[in-house]
Amino acid sequence: MTKLLIDCDPGIDDALALALAGGSPSLEIVGITTVGGNVDLDQTTRNALALREFLRLGDVPVFPGSAGALLRHTVRAAHVHGSTGLGDAVLPPPTRVAGDGHAVDFIVDTLRAAPGEITLAATGPLTNIALAVRREPRIVEWARDFVLMGGTYTRGNHNPAAEFNMLADPEAASIVFDAGWTVTMLGLDVTLTALVTEGILERMRPLGRLAADLLVPAATSYGMVTAEGGPAVHDACAVAYVLDPSLFTCVPAVVHVETAGLYTSGMTVTDFELRGRPANALVATALQVDRFWDLVLEAYGRVASRLG
Amino acid sequence: MTKLLIDCDPGIDDALALALAGGSPSLEIVGITTVGGNVDLDQTTRNALALREFLRLGDVPVFPGSAGALLRHTVRAAHVHGSTGLGDAVLPPPTRVAGDGHAVDFIVDTLRAAPGEITLAATGPLTNIALAVRREPRIVEWARDFVLMGGTYTRGNHNPAAEFNMLADPEAASIVFDAGWTVTMLGLDVTLTALVTEGILERMRPLGRLAADLLVPAATSYGMVTAEGGPAVHDACAVAYVLDPSLFTCVPAVVHVETAGLYTSGMTVTDFELRGRPANALVATALQVDRFWDLVLEAYGRVASRLG
Amino acid sequence: MTKLLIDCDPGIDDALALALAGGSPSLEIVGITTVGGNVDLDQTTRNALALREFLRLGDVPVFPGSAGALLRHTVRAAHVHGSTGLGDAVLPPPTRVAGDGHAVDFIVDTLRAAPGEITLAATGPLTNIALAVRREPRIVEWARDFVLMGGTYTRGNHNPAAEFNMLADPEAASIVFDAGWTVTMLGLDVTLTALVTEGILERMRPLGRLAADLLVPAATSYGMVTAEGGPAVHDACAVAYVLDPSLFTCVPAVVHVETAGLYTSGMTVTDFELRGRPANALVATALQVDRFWDLVLEAYGRVASRLG
Amino acid sequence: MTKLLIDCDPGIDDALALALAGGSPSLEIVGITTVGGNVDLDQTTRNALALREFLRLGDVPVFPGSAGALLRHTVRAAHVHGSTGLGDAVLPPPTRVAGDGHAVDFIVDTLRAAPGEITLAATGPLTNIALAVRREPRIVEWARDFVLMGGTYTRGNHNPAAEFNMLADPEAASIVFDAGWTVTMLGLDVTLTALVTEGILERMRPLGRLAADLLVPAATSYGMVTAEGGPAVHDACAVAYVLDPSLFTCVPAVVHVETAGLYTSGMTVTDFELRGRPANALVATALQVDRFWDLVLEAYGRVASRLG
Repeated sequence: MTKLLIDCDPGIDDALALALAGGSPSLEIVGITTVGGNVDLDQTTRNALALREFLRLGDVPVFPGSAGALLRHTVRAAHVHGSTGLGDAVLPPPTRVAGDGHAVDFIVDTLRAAPGEITLAATGPLTNIALAVRREPRIVEWARDFVLMGGTYTRGNHNPAAEFNMLADPEAASIVFDAGWTVTMLGLDVTLTALVTEGILERMRPLGRLAADLLVPAATSYGMVTAEGGPAVHDACAVAYVLDPSLFTCVPAVVHVETAGLYTSGMTVTDFELRGRPANALVATALQVDRFWDLVLEAYGRVASRLG
Repeated sequence: MTKLLIDCDPGIDDALALALAGGSPSLEIVGITTVGGNVDLDQTTRNALALREFLRLGDVPVFPGSAGALLRHTVRAAHVHGSTGLGDAVLPPPTRVAGDGHAVDFIVDTLRAAPGEITLAATGPLTNIALAVRREPRIVEWARDFVLMGGTYTRGNHNPAAEFNMLADPEAASIVFDAGWTVTMLGLDVTLTALVTEGILERMRPLGRLAADLLVPAATSYGMVTAEGGPAVHDACAVAYVLDPSLFTCVPAVVHVETAGLYTSGMTVTDFELRGRPANALVATALQVDRFWDLVLEAYGRVASRLG
Repeated sequence: MTKLLIDCDPGIDDALALALAGGSPSLEIVGITTVGGNVDLDQTTRNALALREFLRLGDVPVFPGSAGALLRHTVRAAHVHGSTGLGDAVLPPPTRVAGDGHAVDFIVDTLRAAPGEITLAATGPLTNIALAVRREPRIVEWARDFVLMGGTYTRGNHNPAAEFNMLADPEAASIVFDAGWTVTMLGLDVTLTALVTEGILERMRPLGRLAADLLVPAATSYGMVTAEGGPAVHDACAVAYVLDPSLFTCVPAVVHVETAGLYTSGMTVTDFELRGRPANALVATALQVDRFWDLVLEAYGRVASRLG
Repeated sequence: MTKLLIDCDPGIDDALALALAGGSPSLEIVGITTVGGNVDLDQTTRNALALREFLRLGDVPVFPGSAGALLRHTVRAAHVHGSTGLGDAVLPPPTRVAGDGHAVDFIVDTLRAAPGEITLAATGPLTNIALAVRREPRIVEWARDFVLMGGTYTRGNHNPAAEFNMLADPEAASIVFDAGWTVTMLGLDVTLTALVTEGILERMRPLGRLAADLLVPAATSYGMVTAEGGPAVHDACAVAYVLDPSLFTCVPAVVHVETAGLYTSGMTVTDFELRGRPANALVATALQVDRFWDLVLEAYGRVASRLG
């Protein structure tokens, strides 16, 4: 049983990632922490709470964290995720509130309590993770693994150089990549191959309320549709990696996050030539797309059967 | 009765600041938090604990905080403060340990518990304060006042542009100055006038163990002696301001902390021409030196009489 | 008849570009200017002079220009091009010297003398071109077209972010891209498809002295061989574009050259989404490789027949 | 006889500097080159031409140079110097035009023709000087001395960090300070002590047309009056230094020009502690104000007697 603590900013694809986690019996979600990112912190927290109930995730704790970046002004992606952050999906309002405490404390305390047991995944800006690392540097040893959706070693999405999560808090990203652990980076290079094509959409449609209320309206929201013909379920890749790393080809690299550029802040400058330097990242370079969707749709099926 | 929470990196002049606070009956020290700065965190914490006992500060809580800067590699000032951080002063080793928790949590929790009551002062790099601000942005409202020793609007000490505390963590300083409160900045411009001249040293010498074990050996340590002929008791200015703001002339200003310069990182770029912008700082431009020393020496006398 | 002024830093692939130009009857080379780049200015000038005689380019003027970058310390690529800059090729030493004057003046004066008639091509760092633009801003109107080999919109060669020519003088590149003309940028994205494969090498071998003394030893020099199996003749692409633009697919873009990054200086940040901004570049995205080699080998054949 | 080539952007205080030079029999002005600065290049050139005739400078060549900075957008100081650049002074329009050539070429050629004989002075942004240095690096050996008005080691004027001439082209300033010569820097630290007080104004008034048409209206223009009570004749300090260096106290220093700061670009970061590094600048730290005005007013008297 893999234990997963997920730091996220739901966000359409965060929602699809939580649905994947929630439908995976080999995975225990030990907590959900939220960060301002795709939309404001209040909304990402509200969405996490709504998803906890809608997806029947039980008593998984939800803790809100950082509203904005460490140093920079806020960048949002509401043009992609809609004003609620969930595109055209409308979930019932949550009936229970978030935990009374801060995401950073929850991350530190949870990892401290079970060294080597819990995998940490981040699917939003890295503000909470960076603050946790600076608050308690030993979390890099306590975490079983650290996986993030974000970055790119080719071209960005928010601008030519940077992926949104990294651009939203470059200094936090720099802290996290330099923290002393090996970051598994699932960047646009692979997540842009995880597309909800028409064929995938056809396989989703039969999934009852899950499909009708979340998967289909989320996936067909205007802002998520890419030039390649369907939306990419970026964040679901992070959970898929935790479930089955063999879906991905990963290559050791030295990754620096640019913080000083006029046009390149937040760029994950990825050097695959180590030249004697220790790798600080495992960078995904390929995804087995068919196996990925089999895994995801099987999990969605389990959630759908719970929901009716 | 003014309540003071002091975040420091003792450090010779931090020690002299704590002695001033400890000898001031109108002041209650509600806590001491430590940060890596003049010397390493382990040593600044050990020094804080040793000073708590030597100065008879009672049960004041001491909590260790951040070992290094938010983003940057560590800069230390052991060439100034000696390897122990207290110059030639040798204090008895502490018999009690620090609190079980983190400085950032203590700062947040203490300010939350008494909104509007507690003055926060910082005499080291601003890493803890920045993390506290990002962890809980409302501390800027809860603090009664925020005073720091650091910066300069003319020339630096560690290099031509920057003062040591700011240079040691420019990003933290930038966060703190931009946090929404009005920072009282006591920079080198005034602290370099608070010199332990021969005349001041003569007034210190009769103060028994306090003089023999701390004041005199600290003040006459090699690294602290300035070109002007005596060491400057920089950090004591921050406590003196809390005790009696009328000692200082302060001018509203817009202060930006440079984080991107090749030669100027950590510079407190101070604009006294507001041009319609709200001031984010009160910058000290003059100190009434004679009154300052009267205040300080009177307080030292009280401590000395406690110590015998 | 196209008139070409070529600013270069020979360099193996510069040599192959000059051979292409020299074998193209529809092209008149009106001048060759040199810049420090692959190797030092003295060597690039000497190589240009040696090539002028070896390739029988006649009385084409050769003028030396800038030895180093505008602002930065020198970066060289001798590990790629060998200490002479021509790999394993050894040409007879030149018997005639360079013109008595400076490349920047020659560029300005030559373009001024024939507005709208001369195409300017750059295959090295852009120091000379930038100085010419600042010395006489009207050259951007006088040049018939401006074509450069350099940059990338995906990944660099000298480091993950930047191509060598741009990295060698980022400020010059920034000046040149912002000068007000439309820069045709032939970057690594296409030049890395112009590879001397075994098949191409077989077509070169019969070309007498040209093959024996220049093409084959240059192309098989260790440093030029890429991971893909053969050396890329980067600079020859610039001349090929001048001869036949239809070989390339070019897309309008806004290109900014990063000058401030810690890890990204010299990166050509290429935005294909114009969003109302005027394009300052035509960026090559594809090369018809077979047609390219036909053009090149035909020209090499003409040179070879001159040389015997 | 000292030979002086002056690169300037007249500009009120440039005009007062030219008047000083023109009234000094021990000085021969070998040329005036202009640069965009206080006002646009067209206007600074027109002013130089008008001053050449008004001040009876004879056949001194005038050559226009760079209209804008090397890399940056233009910064002007018309709020200080008025729309014509000469404040309230109105000179007769020039009857002769500027030389047919470029300032950079004139600087290079003039210094080449008389190595070791000519002192170069700059009283505007350093764009021309930087281009000349890059065009012909040997000018740093050919110049007898290089003196500039600009910079500061304490506080700026255009913003808290930078003086106007340096801010207007930080990259050019960086090139010039790093060129290998020893720059004599007369910064705000001393030029702000060269004030046209009421007493000085009284000594100017009797100087006939020179006073009526230039000195008095220029000096009493609104924008030039400083907080200290009179305008500072910044640029005249550069010529005064050439005439009599003993007026100034100068200290060797390492000066770096900041080019990367968010708030500090153009700052002349001045380190008087050499720590084994060679000084690249002699920085003025004091001016003998009375002797300065005696020198200046004597020269103005000579010009006035020429003008009637």
